Amino acid sequence: MKTIERIPTGIPGLDEMIRGGLPVPSITLVAGEAGTGKTTFCNQFLCKGAEQKEPGLYFMISGGAPSLVFKFASTYEFVKEDYFCREIHYIDLGEAAEKTKGTLDLLDLIQSKITEFQSKRVVMCNTSELQEILEGDYRRFLIKLARTIKDMGAVSLITGETGPGYPYPADIAHIADGIILLHNTEVNFMRRRSVEVLKMAGTPHMSGKHALDISAKGLTVYPGL
Amino acid sequence: MKTIERIPTGIPGLDEMIRGGLPVPSITLVAGEAGTGKTTFCNQFLCKGAEQKEPGLYFMISGGAPSLVFKFASTYEFVKEDYFCREIHYIDLGEAAEKTKGTLDLLDLIQSKITEFQSKRVVMCNTSELQEILEGDYRRFLIKLARTIKDMGAVSLITGETGPGYPYPADIAHIADGIILLHNTEVNFMRRRSVEVLKMAGTPHMSGKHALDISAKGLTVYPGL
Amino acid sequence: MKTIERIPTGIPGLDEMIRGGLPVPSITLVAGEAGTGKTTFCNQFLCKGAEQKEPGLYFMISGGAPSLVFKFASTYEFVKEDYFCREIHYIDLGEAAEKTKGTLDLLDLIQSKITEFQSKRVVMCNTSELQEILEGDYRRFLIKLARTIKDMGAVSLITGETGPGYPYPADIAHIADGIILLHNTEVNFMRRRSVEVLKMAGTPHMSGKHALDISAKGLTVYPGL
Amino acid sequence: MKTIERIPTGIPGLDEMIRGGLPVPSITLVAGEAGTGKTTFCNQFLCKGAEQKEPGLYFMISGGAPSLVFKFASTYEFVKEDYFCREIHYIDLGEAAEKTKGTLDLLDLIQSKITEFQSKRVVMCNTSELQEILEGDYRRFLIKLARTIKDMGAVSLITGETGPGYPYPADIAHIADGIILLHNTEVNFMRRRSVEVLKMAGTPHMSGKHALDISAKGLTVYPGL
Amino acid sequence: MKTIERIPTGIPGLDEMIRGGLPVPSITLVAGEAGTGKTTFCNQFLCKGAEQKEPGLYFMISGGAPSLVFKFASTYEFVKEDYFCREIHYIDLGEAAEKTKGTLDLLDLIQSKITEFQSKRVVMCNTSELQEILEGDYRRFLIKLARTIKDMGAVSLITGETGPGYPYPADIAHIADGIILLHNTEVNFMRRRSVEVLKMAGTPHMSGKHALDISAKGLTVYPGL
Amino acid sequence: MKTIERIPTGIPGLDEMIRGGLPVPSITLVAGEAGTGKTTFCNQFLCKGAEQKEPGLYFMISGGAPSLVFKFASTYEFVKEDYFCREIHYIDLGEAAEKTKGTLDLLDLIQSKITEFQSKRVVMCNTSELQEILEGDYRRFLIKLARTIKDMGAVSLITGETGPGYPYPADIAHIADGIILLHNTEVNFMRRRSVEVLKMAGTPHMSGKHALDISAKGLTVYPGL
Repeated sequence: MKTIERIPTGIPGLDEMIRGGLPVPSITLVAGEAGTGKTTFCNQFLCKGAEQKEPGLYFMISGGAPSLVFKFASTYEFVKEDYFCREIHYIDLGEAAEKTKGTLDLLDLIQSKITEFQSKRVVMCNTSELQEILEGDYRRFLIKLARTIKDMGAVSLITGETGPGYPYPADIAHIADGIILLHNTEVNFMRRRSVEVLKMAGTPHMSGKHALDISAKGLTVYPGL
Repeated sequence: MKTIERIPTGIPGLDEMIRGGLPVPSITLVAGEAGTGKTTFCNQFLCKGAEQKEPGLYFMISGGAPSLVFKFASTYEFVKEDYFCREIHYIDLGEAAEKTKGTLDLLDLIQSKITEFQSKRVVMCNTSELQEILEGDYRRFLIKLARTIKDMGAVSLITGETGPGYPYPADIAHIADGIILLHNTEVNFMRRRSVEVLKMAGTPHMSGKHALDISAKGLTVYPGL
Repeated sequence: MKTIERIPTGIPGLDEMIRGGLPVPSITLVAGEAGTGKTTFCNQFLCKGAEQKEPGLYFMISGGAPSLVFKFASTYEFVKEDYFCREIHYIDLGEAAEKTKGTLDLLDLIQSKITEFQSKRVVMCNTSELQEILEGDYRRFLIKLARTIKDMGAVSLITGETGPGYPYPADIAHIADGIILLHNTEVNFMRRRSVEVLKMAGTPHMSGKHALDISAKGLTVYPGL
Repeated sequence: MKTIERIPTGIPGLDEMIRGGLPVPSITLVAGEAGTGKTTFCNQFLCKGAEQKEPGLYFMISGGAPSLVFKFASTYEFVKEDYFCREIHYIDLGEAAEKTKGTLDLLDLIQSKITEFQSKRVVMCNTSELQEILEGDYRRFLIKLARTIKDMGAVSLITGETGPGYPYPADIAHIADGIILLHNTEVNFMRRRSVEVLKMAGTPHMSGKHALDISAKGLTVYPGL
Repeated sequence: MKTIERIPTGIPGLDEMIRGGLPVPSITLVAGEAGTGKTTFCNQFLCKGAEQKEPGLYFMISGGAPSLVFKFASTYEFVKEDYFCREIHYIDLGEAAEKTKGTLDLLDLIQSKITEFQSKRVVMCNTSELQEILEGDYRRFLIKLARTIKDMGAVSLITGETGPGYPYPADIAHIADGIILLHNTEVNFMRRRSVEVLKMAGTPHMSGKHALDISAKGLTVYPGL
Repeated sequence: MKTIERIPTGIPGLDEMIRGGLPVPSITLVAGEAGTGKTTFCNQFLCKGAEQKEPGLYFMISGGAPSLVFKFASTYEFVKEDYFCREIHYIDLGEAAEKTKGTLDLLDLIQSKITEFQSKRVVMCNTSELQEILEGDYRRFLIKLARTIKDMGAVSLITGETGPGYPYPADIAHIADGIILLHNTEVNFMRRRSVEVLKMAGTPHMSGKHALDISAKGLTVYPGL
């Protein structure tokens, strides 16, 4: 039985559930409905790295300046202003995708950025937007993206929207080594947050839903609650 | 932790739920079924601005003269007749969209109107109608619209229809910083109104459903009820 | 707060629910499953006008001579035989739609008929049939239809089919100022009729389901039951 | 209030529910899942006519010789062998539809057969099969079929399949003056048959589900049970 | 009332439910989810014929040598090794379908095999696979197949997959004279098998679900349990 | 009644449920949602063979080096490091599929690998990814794959994703001789694992759900629990 290298997510309680952190290399799908904390999860993951001087990359597709994403995130205590553009780089993939229109060019861009910043922590946000732009190439792009990221030894989070009737986007799930679900379920007119590790390759993990809180400290998981 | 500039919605009770108002700049999706008060929400938001001499824009797509929208709204007490065409401008985007047929022209028009009237408050009504007209360009239009509005420092409401089985239009949700749901749920042959802030970037907000009343005063929220 | 001109629907009890009648001008979607009384609702609306010498128009699309629609309606007491072709005109839009195949020609025809008969009350039946004939132009047709009817100062009812899983046709709902639902729900092997005003622009209205009876007198609503 | 001419369906109990029979002219959709008795309903309707020397037509689309349809029906007591090809004519529309491939030719054939046999009772079985063959013309075919049949003064039954989630085929329902549903619901591992008149133009009818039995005598309805 | 010729299915208990057996000629859809015993049903039907020296045909589409189908079936006691290629012939229709690519050629092949082996009992397995190969011709193929089989006086079983939400394939149901459902329902973490005759032309049959057992003897039905 | 040759799965408890093991030759679909243990099931099956010096093949499609799949698996006790590339060979079918783009070439590759390594145990992982690449040829590929594998006398596992509303991929189920479902059902905020043999050709098997545990020893089934 081999020991697998891991890096902490930076989310208190979650690392306990997965034997200390995410495997290196690996791709983890973070899925949940709007408002479940996916973006905060990703920023917290990158800030944990930044705290340890590990450079991080945040690839985004949808609209709004990268600085704004950071500004909204900065209401959380774990964000330090000098991380921005030093330890953590926000890159708008949407513009590049429209210009190149080619899967290979896009993979080249991602690969060159990871090389440039020597990033071990890579976030891909709103990846499903690429489905519209890449069309028939989308799934093949995902398969190659997975290979690229893992061949470079990086640990990547890919966010995924959840809709009524499907718990996570199936096409991203296919290429993911891990799947983490963020729930915000309505129980008797109240919302109750929880986190669930559905799958984590090479990692005996705790199963079921565990209480999740989102405060000024970001996400905190209470395993067993 | 940064402080984020905010403007009040003008809806009593709602601003308490979101730390004083909507972030500047930002885009908020206001979603709900027919008859839940989306149009009234938007007019109330613009009239709150007009009261403070902030110019507002109401982009509409569907049929009927702009004056009629205002006339129907004017049954509410918060509407003052002299707001019309002075503080609040109703612009029919549908005609422009059909003539130009180009995403870029449409964005130009929106941008030029925001510049012309120096509007900080911008409402986009029935945006999903553009889906038919712009077709394959629709999602890219939304991504660019989000960038345009936020680059201009405006605060925008975009209304979205809710259908059975999906709580909000996913494509608008993807570009929105905030999502507010208006419910009108049937409970024992009675209708019960409520409002729910599902997501608000950079804003620790109250979660769950809160009682909503619609009267001659417009929408009133009772947080905690 | 302005006062809005209204005309009575002619359905006892319903006018009480909507402050005396439908706003002038406006478009109201009357939606329900087969057998809920949509056609009777429309005929009752036109006969109320005919009684007061207001000319009415009934645009139909589906098969069967206009005289037959009137003949089936004539089993109701509110129908007087001499209304037919004098106060109320039944016009088969289906044939015209197939011949012209153009949205503009069809709108011209509708407009010219409203002008010819000076109709304030206009019914559009089985409008969704036009979806097949107009195809990609259908939604744009609806938007322009709404503008035309309201610019002419008319009050229009548009009927809409309800299917399992959707309470009303979304595309017609988008252009409607009001939405009235007719229910015929199965409760313990019994059918129970009710009416519900889901939305009525410029009209503070009673919400929820109210008992509905269909007899030889046509529809009667019992608000509060 | 006019009196509408009616003809009996031949199904004991059902005629009581609809004021003596089906209106002349009219089209009634008979819908139900496989095994609910739609074919038997239609044969019983034609045999009732044959008994009174009223010639009937049974248009069929699916496979198997017309004689076989009659042979299977002949296990019921109401079928007399000498009706076949004398009072009741079975015509395979499927072959004609494939040859002509034109909506107008098909309508011509139907019209000429109704004229040839002077049929007041006309059954159309498995009409939805034409959807495949006529494709985009299908709905227009239905609209014209309705007009043709009613202009000729005939009373027609059109059978329709029911699937899980939709109680009747919407496109046929749109052109029908009446809708009769045949249920065979599973209650506690038992099947329970019932009939329901959902709609009948010009006919104040009993609503709700009423017990239905299928025996060697064919369908029998017990109104009120 | 005519007497209809019938042949036994060979399944103990089932023949009692349908007045002694399947009508000659006729087509019966045998539908059920994976693992409900459809293939065993068909082999049992053919072996019953083989026992009485009636030659049978088993048309298959999916992969694997015909001998393997027989080998897997041969774990049942009703299979005698010398039936194979003598009384029962397994014919792979998939290869022929791909070569000919024509509906008519395929029907010719089926017809010639029925003639060659003088088969009264004909099984068609995995017919829905032809949907992919024949595409737009599939439904017309089914209609003609039904006519061919019945014109030749054969009794045919066609197997059909059941999925969540639809109890049988609608297109095969349309051409079938009989429909038999095989259930394997989960009740309190246990599976419970049952059989149900949903429809059988010319055959007053027992309705509802009846207990079904699958053992080394094949299928056994316990009517009334 | 013939005796069918079988090989053990290597999963304690499961072989008891299916009379000692999987039939030779045969194809078994192993279906379940993400995180139910499909990959572990397959590795355990191959390691059982490797333990007995039976060479195994693991065809994979999605991204990441084959060595990584083995590395993640190696946290289980049943994996011995020297199996890799000696007894068990991981082959990336995705790259080959993109290069050849032909169904026949792909089948040739699979066939040549089975021949080269004399593999009796063959795993196909994420086969549904081929659907995108092979498009219209996908189902025909599956049919031929089934024939190829069985003609070579191999025993194959094909993994299949399960989504909400469908328990297994229908197209793979059609060509499978056996179907094994892995469940991870939520019961009162807890997850409960179970295994179910839905179908196994030529194999009288235990039905219903049986408790499943996943630990460092891999999958263990407790039949009867």
